[in-house]
Amino acid sequence: MGAVKTKRMPRAVREQQMLDAAVRTFGQRGYMAASMDEIAELAGVSKPLVYLYLNSKEDLFTACIRREAKALTEAVRAGARPGLPADRQLWSGLAAFFTHTARHPDGWAVLHLQARTHGEVFAAEVAAMRTEIVAFVTQLILEAAREAHRDPDLPEREVSGLAEALVGAAEALADWANATPGVTARQSAATLMNFAWAGLGNLMEGRHWTPPDDEAGVGAGEAQTGRTSPVR
Amino acid sequence: MGAVKTKRMPRAVREQQMLDAAVRTFGQRGYMAASMDEIAELAGVSKPLVYLYLNSKEDLFTACIRREAKALTEAVRAGARPGLPADRQLWSGLAAFFTHTARHPDGWAVLHLQARTHGEVFAAEVAAMRTEIVAFVTQLILEAAREAHRDPDLPEREVSGLAEALVGAAEALADWANATPGVTARQSAATLMNFAWAGLGNLMEGRHWTPPDDEAGVGAGEAQTGRTSPVR
Repeated sequence: MGAVKTKRMPRAVREQQMLDAAVRTFGQRGYMAASMDEIAELAGVSKPLVYLYLNSKEDLFTACIRREAKALTEAVRAGARPGLPADRQLWSGLAAFFTHTARHPDGWAVLHLQARTHGEVFAAEVAAMRTEIVAFVTQLILEAAREAHRDPDLPEREVSGLAEALVGAAEALADWANATPGVTARQSAATLMNFAWAGLGNLMEGRHWTPPDDEAGVGAGEAQTGRTSPVR
Repeated sequence: MGAVKTKRMPRAVREQQMLDAAVRTFGQRGYMAASMDEIAELAGVSKPLVYLYLNSKEDLFTACIRREAKALTEAVRAGARPGLPADRQLWSGLAAFFTHTARHPDGWAVLHLQARTHGEVFAAEVAAMRTEIVAFVTQLILEAAREAHRDPDLPEREVSGLAEALVGAAEALADWANATPGVTARQSAATLMNFAWAGLGNLMEGRHWTPPDDEAGVGAGEAQTGRTSPVR
């Protein structure tokens, strides 16, 4: 790419090219091993220009995390379709999540592996995104429970726990799907739906799985939330 | 503690005291903020003795990760009781996991937060433990599916995905439970059981949740595993 053409390209466009190159390099090589030389070369610019625009390797990495976090959050929000029945909403949200992580494996590696492995500052960036997604999922589950069950007797605390479990399961499954050749986004979403839906669906109808009472040594003393009808 | 008494204590006992102090300090303060002075003081020994026994902060942290990983893996293995029906096995395994993480919150923070945040070497230690637990859970699900369903038509790949989802959900829920005052181990285990069991239980009986066919943009083209009976 010639110097003249380089100068004509708007800064915003060039920055996105640098971020594209950086996400790919950080995602595939890891944060430590990735070099600014490699990123500059892949972006088709000089290394000083990368430093001029994005200041340092740390700042470049932070910019990557923020861009990828925003893209993922927007994809999930766009995927969930208010007005659909609860199972369809969950399905379309999960499908959007796994479609995004499958299409952007380097972005997902930056968010879920690299950012969490290389210090508290980067980890905090990702934690902020995760908190937002958990809050969004909590809201979805609460609304669905209210819909299904006029008297919403799923305690808010349990809904928070369910949202954490669902997000944790989705994260783990996305890692696994991206590391396992041939697993499609649709298969990952269907696996999690199969894993989760009947459980959540039954909960929303007020049907809980009831733990046996004759267990020893299981955080004894604290009563369960008191549903009686077993799921199966 | 006097110098004479100090000398009489066997090395193995003293090392465990140092590790106890280190797990507590790393878990509560974080790896970076934890100081060797603090750890030595909490263990009731001199700082040079900590270095003599455990070499460096890095090696001490690695020793903490290994000890806590072994304890957690053993607790989960001991919790799962072969011979019980599948739901009872899953329940007792989950109850053992959440009881352990609730009783050892600093050990859990070392494994799931600190070790993964401070570099690839520590993260690899935890990844090894996780691989072992996922393999164990995969085996449990496979055996339960075979038991429930003479012709085991849950594809092994889907079982791997389910095990990943279950482990990811359990990890996220343990983080949340330890950060949320008043949540007991039994409640966490019951929340995950309610979330997961009916889904898994239905799968084992060959009843899948079936994704709608009219979705656009969901990793199109790849056929689902082809079960027809919806869960609800």
